[in-house]
Amino acid sequence: MKVIIGPASTALAEKVAELIRCEKVSVAFKTFPDGESYIRLEGCMQGEHAAIIQTTCAPQDSRLMQLAFMAAAAKRNGARKVTAVVPYLAYARQDKVFLAGENISIETVAQMLKAAGVDALVTVNIHAESALGMFPFPAKNLSAIPLLAEYFVQKGYRGAFALAPDKGALYIAQQAQQVLGGEAGYLEKQRDRYTGQTKQTCKGLDVKGKAVIIFDDIISTGGTIVGAAEILREQGAAKVFAACVHPLLIGEAEKRILDAGVEEIVGTDSVPSRNSKVSLAPLIANALKALESG
Amino acid sequence: MKVIIGPASTALAEKVAELIRCEKVSVAFKTFPDGESYIRLEGCMQGEHAAIIQTTCAPQDSRLMQLAFMAAAAKRNGARKVTAVVPYLAYARQDKVFLAGENISIETVAQMLKAAGVDALVTVNIHAESALGMFPFPAKNLSAIPLLAEYFVQKGYRGAFALAPDKGALYIAQQAQQVLGGEAGYLEKQRDRYTGQTKQTCKGLDVKGKAVIIFDDIISTGGTIVGAAEILREQGAAKVFAACVHPLLIGEAEKRILDAGVEEIVGTDSVPSRNSKVSLAPLIANALKALESG
Repeated sequence: MKVIIGPASTALAEKVAELIRCEKVSVAFKTFPDGESYIRLEGCMQGEHAAIIQTTCAPQDSRLMQLAFMAAAAKRNGARKVTAVVPYLAYARQDKVFLAGENISIETVAQMLKAAGVDALVTVNIHAESALGMFPFPAKNLSAIPLLAEYFVQKGYRGAFALAPDKGALYIAQQAQQVLGGEAGYLEKQRDRYTGQTKQTCKGLDVKGKAVIIFDDIISTGGTIVGAAEILREQGAAKVFAACVHPLLIGEAEKRILDAGVEEIVGTDSVPSRNSKVSLAPLIANALKALESG
Repeated sequence: MKVIIGPASTALAEKVAELIRCEKVSVAFKTFPDGESYIRLEGCMQGEHAAIIQTTCAPQDSRLMQLAFMAAAAKRNGARKVTAVVPYLAYARQDKVFLAGENISIETVAQMLKAAGVDALVTVNIHAESALGMFPFPAKNLSAIPLLAEYFVQKGYRGAFALAPDKGALYIAQQAQQVLGGEAGYLEKQRDRYTGQTKQTCKGLDVKGKAVIIFDDIISTGGTIVGAAEILREQGAAKVFAACVHPLLIGEAEKRILDAGVEEIVGTDSVPSRNSKVSLAPLIANALKALESG
């Protein structure tokens, strides 16, 4: 196996290559003045299994095209198999037809990646795992929640309350609970399909005097976390943290969350930022080792 | 046939639909706060031949993904055939492996569009027509050069000198010459493959006292046109114009070209801008009519 260092995930990809002690292939990458991406693989791929590590957070479309071009270049240069490792997979939330005339974007994205040369995909905490069933190649979804929970254990918060901001994310809070050893629960949340606005209601969780960590897959504009944090403060939580796999943190999200009384935001390097306090490298390295031996 | 009004080419697509007197399908389009594109077709596609009109100038990657999503949505909603009409086709200049490890981006783009649901493609003045041979579906290349030349005839420049900025574009100047009725010629140009810089040399063309129109497929950063204009002024040309199909005109290109003594820049609506003085609508309408009857 050779690890191709995608331009959107260079630091993470370097770490993964070190952990699995395999050869890495650098990518000469530039953006032309007109905005087109240029990629060139700086290594031989003949007969190799290529693992391309490239996240697809914003600018999503460019990073998807770069991923496709790397896959095609690997195949063109002799790779026998291409596995795309995409920590944050764009368009995963468009996994259903909600209104007539819509497309299932994530299915189209997967079909396009296959056409470009991708044979298998590894992602991390995809929004709905059911989407993987639509992919035209084997796909594996990893969970980084135990790594996030471990971060809080190391900081002295064993036994903290693992809270999901909605019922759909309860399984995430429960994964964290396995590591933290405390309670788990969720807030009721309703989303208006047209305006996208949400409101949360407390179901009488007992968080008074406790350290509470809100766990979610994605923090986007932060509205959900802000709403949850406000409820938790009202209910007398001693400390509130926010943990997520994919810290998109659009616009003023970080400031809004901290202003709402959240002590710290903890994310992974799926979306490289100053909140990327937990690296996915060991998780991805293990998955790639299993792929090679399996 | 129904014309799907791509968000990157709304005005052009509306004109085409009017010219061929067919039903048009609007597209509900938005960009989510995180940067993902959303599209929804506002019309029935059952059993239809869908012609999606969507250019892919910057932001190229987003416009390509939107095109792919529209094609997939058309198929999902029952279209029997999808023809992508892409006036400016991104990545067409990456049509060869110049250095080992590169990808042929335009081939990958075509394969991805096919995977999304595209069955045929119509484009305008693709950089090298040979690229069409790599496409996994029938593809047609139209030339807008006669329309551009006609613009100058209407402005009173019948008989003007049609100049190509390099030998590769001589066929373009010759197409213009057919309409203009004057002379045609080209400047020598050499491009350094690594730095991308070019230099032009005059072969002793006789342009003294003449109106000269520089014709090219694309004006990008404008360096080629500026160099050509300077040589033409030195050689005593009476007036210099710049005409192109795809007026990308990146950054300060327009100002630089006008500062170099060019009287006017004339482009088409393949790249919507204030230099889009010639519409591709009749050209595309005729091609679509021929597709339907052929």
